[in-house]
Amino acid sequence: MDIPDPDTIKAAAQAQRAAMQALFDKLRQDGLDEPGVSRDPYGAGEQRAHATVTKAAEALGLEIGHDAAANLYMTLPGRDRTAPVLVIGSHLDSVPHGGNFDGAAGVLAGLAIVAALRTMRLTPECDIVVMGIRAEESVWFQVSYIGSRGSLGTLPDGALDARRVDTGRTLAEHIADCGGDPQALHPRARHFDPSRIRAYLELHIEQAPSLVEAQRPVAICTGIPGNFRYPDAWIEGCHDHVGLPRRFRHDAAMAGAEFAMALDAAWADYDARGIPMACTLGRFHTDPAAHGLTIVPGAFYFSLDVRAYDETILAELKEKVGQIIDGIEQRRAVRFHLGPQAHAAVGLVDPAIKAGLEAAAGTQGVAVLQIGSPASHDAAAFAAAGVPMGMIFVRNENGSHNPHEAMAIEDFIDGACILIQWVATVLTGRDR
Amino acid sequence: MDIPDPDTIKAAAQAQRAAMQALFDKLRQDGLDEPGVSRDPYGAGEQRAHATVTKAAEALGLEIGHDAAANLYMTLPGRDRTAPVLVIGSHLDSVPHGGNFDGAAGVLAGLAIVAALRTMRLTPECDIVVMGIRAEESVWFQVSYIGSRGSLGTLPDGALDARRVDTGRTLAEHIADCGGDPQALHPRARHFDPSRIRAYLELHIEQAPSLVEAQRPVAICTGIPGNFRYPDAWIEGCHDHVGLPRRFRHDAAMAGAEFAMALDAAWADYDARGIPMACTLGRFHTDPAAHGLTIVPGAFYFSLDVRAYDETILAELKEKVGQIIDGIEQRRAVRFHLGPQAHAAVGLVDPAIKAGLEAAAGTQGVAVLQIGSPASHDAAAFAAAGVPMGMIFVRNENGSHNPHEAMAIEDFIDGACILIQWVATVLTGRDR
Repeated sequence: MDIPDPDTIKAAAQAQRAAMQALFDKLRQDGLDEPGVSRDPYGAGEQRAHATVTKAAEALGLEIGHDAAANLYMTLPGRDRTAPVLVIGSHLDSVPHGGNFDGAAGVLAGLAIVAALRTMRLTPECDIVVMGIRAEESVWFQVSYIGSRGSLGTLPDGALDARRVDTGRTLAEHIADCGGDPQALHPRARHFDPSRIRAYLELHIEQAPSLVEAQRPVAICTGIPGNFRYPDAWIEGCHDHVGLPRRFRHDAAMAGAEFAMALDAAWADYDARGIPMACTLGRFHTDPAAHGLTIVPGAFYFSLDVRAYDETILAELKEKVGQIIDGIEQRRAVRFHLGPQAHAAVGLVDPAIKAGLEAAAGTQGVAVLQIGSPASHDAAAFAAAGVPMGMIFVRNENGSHNPHEAMAIEDFIDGACILIQWVATVLTGRDR
Repeated sequence: MDIPDPDTIKAAAQAQRAAMQALFDKLRQDGLDEPGVSRDPYGAGEQRAHATVTKAAEALGLEIGHDAAANLYMTLPGRDRTAPVLVIGSHLDSVPHGGNFDGAAGVLAGLAIVAALRTMRLTPECDIVVMGIRAEESVWFQVSYIGSRGSLGTLPDGALDARRVDTGRTLAEHIADCGGDPQALHPRARHFDPSRIRAYLELHIEQAPSLVEAQRPVAICTGIPGNFRYPDAWIEGCHDHVGLPRRFRHDAAMAGAEFAMALDAAWADYDARGIPMACTLGRFHTDPAAHGLTIVPGAFYFSLDVRAYDETILAELKEKVGQIIDGIEQRRAVRFHLGPQAHAAVGLVDPAIKAGLEAAAGTQGVAVLQIGSPASHDAAAFAAAGVPMGMIFVRNENGSHNPHEAMAIEDFIDGACILIQWVATVLTGRDR
């Protein structure tokens, strides 16, 4: 029952390199949609990725299963098959014309880990489930974490009626297309009982250049941000003539600009105090049907996403948004209409898992950073369901959600190596 | 050759009230395009207005003519038909879903004046040309003063190739549709020789609420602003993931917001120093094809119009725009592309005409303000061509370029009355 020595683990990780490279190449080929790759969730792109990953798992002798949300379960049996399981996974969909690594790297890391355990002839105490999760990217159905929340029984009301922005068909229809059972998802049934999950681990490419900047291959995640969002907000002013003096204007675009600058100033202030957050006005625009060179904008539209790693900070920021709006409404004689609000809870990383991953990195001699996740991940859905969660990030050039994602296979193997060390340390013993 | 007494002039002006109201009503009906009216230049809307006005002019026995730009000339013959003429006019187009008075009021004022002269049996010294000018509103072709500059031979290079934003067809095609001769406009031929014009007078609704605020019906114009414009500017940043930390972003929308706020601050400063100007970002928007809730905007588009009454101030402001951009480019790692630039010269009011209009208002007992025009007008094109020019503004609620323009017919008649008094004073004598 000894833990293999670090060099044995490193060698077992390195041994997966060629197979993993080939698998990444196959996935790129499957999803090619120049520029970049498109793995449309519950569609042809994601289906091809599922087929490729399933084939690789079968070659490793893993048990294959699915749930009502058509998530893919690839199980390495443990010694106690009744014990809560370890889940290692991520999603297999991508944004349109995205990169090859956002999501897929985490699923392949799971396969690399079980393959390495096999190489070392180690049997874990409990089942290890490598999970290929469906439909994480919210750009398609405007609903996030569909696969993971579908399995955990935490999908929001109405999610199954959401329509994919390109096909116009409902999520329920798309799930049925892919062999899932949307009816069974309706009563929020738990298909994967959180109490049956010992821990959830996810490897993901970093979506910011912190690791590139610091010249480190891997980071240990300190937390996943929660957010509040106003997807469809607007400012009501008055359309007026280009020559109108300043004191008479109700310029909705200037009000939008002031709003943006006030949020940006607040963000700079939090940054200066070392409190991580982010604020994005992704849509930020005058009315294409009414704007023009000689018209003072009378309406201005925006989306807002504010994220932070601490619910207290989120609450503080939400209050700040209200104060900023009050001031602008008074100064500029306009009216803000925030519209519907969405909220995602902060995803707390389990301290013991985080400490274990740091120790594993130390044992393996991989120099790591500690960073808050810039983005949301399926891991947050597991954490919200009460599952102890940990994540690591792998260095990636050029950001994610674009065709230029660039993860070196060496960095990926460094990440996998840390996870194997952790798994070997906490839940395996040498077979026989 | 005596000038009629003020009460006779007032009565002659008042006598036009019912006919003018009927004509405004007919124009509204012609252009109805809820909400508001649309008189699209060199299109169906403007054509209907031309037909209605032509019919009214024919009823008054005026001579009807056109030039290569398809402007409408409605001439009351004077005693000396070879003498330089007095032009009274404005434009007959409108912005999309605009009001009924911006432009049209000035043409109808011309008709009211010649009708009143007829009522009083006065024949002017020289021809009075009521001019129905084409295509003043720059929102359609992104070129201003098309009709007046077409007639004066001062259209900018490339203007005939400009495409109407809604139809996508060129100005040349549209002019030909309406019976004009775009070929003849090409060599910048003067169709209306400025040396043949004694003076240009224009009545226009006020486009700001200064008269409403001051409770006066009419204002004498002290000047028309010049401007510089960037109709198609944009900011190049990077599209990135919503979670990207602030220091890594190249957020084009935030850069646009900072630009807007810096211009607004400069404007507030000029206002405080009593120097009139205006600054409008009429189009101000992220890319509809690429923006989204979870994407940091990598491109931002805007139009800019900056106007002032003094060429020195305009030059100062243009330099300021450059300085603001330099700072933002450095701070936010983005790049501004200003694109083509347009410029309109400041329109200087002829001091003798202005003094004459003030005296006429005094004679008629109409309490007037003196204000700088908030907006550009065809009058500025005549002034730039060397024609002595004067303007008056009529009180108007709710601004212009919107469906809610509201000019009382009483105020319009007060304005016409001032112009009749001026015309009777300077260039008429009693017939026989």
